[in-house]
Amino acid sequence: MSENNHIIIIGCGAGGATAAQFARKTDRKAKITIYEKGPYPEYSKCGLPYAISGDVPSLQDLIEFSEDWFKKAKISLHLNTTVTKINSEKQEITVEDKTGSISTASYTSLIIATGANPAIPPIQNLTSNNKLVSGVFTLRTIDDAENIRKKVVENKKATVIGAGLIGLEMADCLHRKNMDVTVVEALPQILPNTLDADMAKIITEQLLKKITLYTNHFATKIETTNDAISEVIIQDRKTKETKHLKTDLLIIATGTEPEVKLADQAGCEFGITKGIKVDETAKTSQKHIYAVGDCTEYIDYITEKPLLIGLGSIAVRQGIAAGTNAAGKTYQLPKGALLTCTSDFFDMEIAAVGPSSHFLKDIPTLSGKYQGSSLPDYFPGGKPITVKTTIQANTGVIVAAQAVGENAAQRINTFAAAMLGNLNVTTFRTLETAYAPPIAPTLDVVTLAADIAMMKYQRKQK
Amino acid sequence: MSENNHIIIIGCGAGGATAAQFARKTDRKAKITIYEKGPYPEYSKCGLPYAISGDVPSLQDLIEFSEDWFKKAKISLHLNTTVTKINSEKQEITVEDKTGSISTASYTSLIIATGANPAIPPIQNLTSNNKLVSGVFTLRTIDDAENIRKKVVENKKATVIGAGLIGLEMADCLHRKNMDVTVVEALPQILPNTLDADMAKIITEQLLKKITLYTNHFATKIETTNDAISEVIIQDRKTKETKHLKTDLLIIATGTEPEVKLADQAGCEFGITKGIKVDETAKTSQKHIYAVGDCTEYIDYITEKPLLIGLGSIAVRQGIAAGTNAAGKTYQLPKGALLTCTSDFFDMEIAAVGPSSHFLKDIPTLSGKYQGSSLPDYFPGGKPITVKTTIQANTGVIVAAQAVGENAAQRINTFAAAMLGNLNVTTFRTLETAYAPPIAPTLDVVTLAADIAMMKYQRKQK
Repeated sequence: MSENNHIIIIGCGAGGATAAQFARKTDRKAKITIYEKGPYPEYSKCGLPYAISGDVPSLQDLIEFSEDWFKKAKISLHLNTTVTKINSEKQEITVEDKTGSISTASYTSLIIATGANPAIPPIQNLTSNNKLVSGVFTLRTIDDAENIRKKVVENKKATVIGAGLIGLEMADCLHRKNMDVTVVEALPQILPNTLDADMAKIITEQLLKKITLYTNHFATKIETTNDAISEVIIQDRKTKETKHLKTDLLIIATGTEPEVKLADQAGCEFGITKGIKVDETAKTSQKHIYAVGDCTEYIDYITEKPLLIGLGSIAVRQGIAAGTNAAGKTYQLPKGALLTCTSDFFDMEIAAVGPSSHFLKDIPTLSGKYQGSSLPDYFPGGKPITVKTTIQANTGVIVAAQAVGENAAQRINTFAAAMLGNLNVTTFRTLETAYAPPIAPTLDVVTLAADIAMMKYQRKQK
Repeated sequence: MSENNHIIIIGCGAGGATAAQFARKTDRKAKITIYEKGPYPEYSKCGLPYAISGDVPSLQDLIEFSEDWFKKAKISLHLNTTVTKINSEKQEITVEDKTGSISTASYTSLIIATGANPAIPPIQNLTSNNKLVSGVFTLRTIDDAENIRKKVVENKKATVIGAGLIGLEMADCLHRKNMDVTVVEALPQILPNTLDADMAKIITEQLLKKITLYTNHFATKIETTNDAISEVIIQDRKTKETKHLKTDLLIIATGTEPEVKLADQAGCEFGITKGIKVDETAKTSQKHIYAVGDCTEYIDYITEKPLLIGLGSIAVRQGIAAGTNAAGKTYQLPKGALLTCTSDFFDMEIAAVGPSSHFLKDIPTLSGKYQGSSLPDYFPGGKPITVKTTIQANTGVIVAAQAVGENAAQRINTFAAAMLGNLNVTTFRTLETAYAPPIAPTLDVVTLAADIAMMKYQRKQK
């Protein structure tokens, strides 16, 4: 049977490559083909800032699944090859290779992993002949990173539009390359999709020691000199005042838009986010068609509202689900995305799980926050760690947690596991965390934050 | 009402002091008294090895709740004062102070936190006039640590009996003080109560680069020269062969026995472990009497079998429960102890939650183990981390996890939260862990270990 299976995957990013890997793991005999329009096999997009900073020595190092790996796995990988059409009735796709030669291929299962494109804000003069002006970049591909790297020059001025995770990762990277960095964010706080304002403030204080930040500002226009950017003009959203920032390098990091042309044509259903709707098995509304990664819409585990998948970690998990299911076994994801995420910039680790307060507006919640140390007070070398957890006001169920400081990511994983088990704060606060003087205090800040949320919860029950 | 409350606590260790603290937090007006037979207010027993090694500069640093702290909290602390009798009918105790003066005090609630005494194995010549021979030590008090510290001399020979957590912490500490260290363990593996044999092996390999280890050996006799230890004689349990180990300093780290004389007299019920039986609120069988810490018996969260509390982290949580409940509010611990624990020796962090395989003999289980890196392969600086998780063979529910390597403790906390939520491996393997190249890989070793357990589980279901 399985020899007649043909699993076709469009796009060799994290989601697509993982789908291929798990399809192969699940079915050793199935025919598996990937079409990738770009010139590289799967590489870590999240690693790009670190290849620019030099933490990762070479951009080529970011390639996680090499062409050789695909060969060994007997997965047919076609680079520089574009899928131009999906005929979902005939279960057939049309393909155009680098030479312009066109062919068709039939699938038993199709996995769409077309990713996303950088969202380009409406900034005057940003493009010339439909291309970004010299010195202006988005960061999505190895080629983007290569081009940015050439423009990184000590003591020159860099501006980053957007203070999300990627914006701040780039800001930190350019700062560490001794550029003079300014970040511009339209909202009143940095990391608006990731952290609550009070938690973001901890990072802001650190960041202001090293770079310039304008929140509540957006870029309206750029000026060029000799066809290259020389200035970006930003405007205060309240006062309407404008500022001219001398800029040699401009990074646009204002999010992405799902790439869904093919899925649209295939008749896949879309959600209000414009992403391809998928279920717990990564299936779309169309028979035999799965979709994974940044082109998809899933729901939030807590709010059950639709959201775009913008995290490599979720793309990989959807890839596992799509690959396994397409190859005939069952792999079911949780009913929604926890959105566990982390990053590290300006010498601080941050992490979060669950929606930030902005996305919890419709749910009555209570929060507990605790600022402590990673070690018992008497043990030298303890580092600050702040944890905040948010619970449903009426049930006490944990709906979110955020951390800034030592081992923020691993501490947030503990909350993620609690949320997957729908734990109540009354239970979670009693969690026995691992204790030893050189490693962690008897009561870790994760349960101390929960204690504070719990006190508010108890007061409310009265 | 609360002004007539008198909460009396016997013993100012981690459990007793925490009980006092939470009684005060819960009831600002209650009268709270602690009697401690030793000369120090609460200090970290777990910190003692690190004060010997010098990681913690001074033994005095280990004091976490100072006399001044108790004064400010309006908790009456009596040091060098022994409770000689509990009259549970009259709700009264008898107390003898340093001068021999005897008095009585009435309680509304009594919290017994009498701790444990080192278990002394039957080794010939170990004592003289009921005291340990010069050069032979247990490690339980600041005075023990002080005395050991005086005997730590570079290039001299130290022997540690018992390869549990404290034994290995001391072995590491003495090795770092440039002593020539030998560890003797009666069982076939190190850390027999904490790790499965395969996980313990990872540490053993590391440890053998630095010290000498005899497993399956026990000490039978010591020889003295000028009234001080000069040699310890050990015997192979199988071959019966004996070895003479030159020894200048001998540490006995073969566990503890609960100190329960007073509780016995008060009529508290005991379990088969000889510890005082307590429930989820830290209550004993006797009205108005709680017990916390190393003197108590609780049940294992997974096996529901009785066990002695030998962890400071649990003592503290029982202290929270006893203090809060004694002062009139409700604090309920989980139905059993997860036994989350960690330590760090020979440059490796270890951690565990749930029973090790030895204690799971009666439950059919399956395990998954994964050895990975703390970072994505392409990111420099990744450190090895091995995680093993064990599940119930028939239900898939996670019953234990162990880790050796980078951030073992925080990774084990994630399993602890999963176990508190009774998560099945089918759910846990889908956990979204926090991912960023400088912090963790897309799929953390915690879920990769779960995947392997899951595969075995699926195979069994067929």
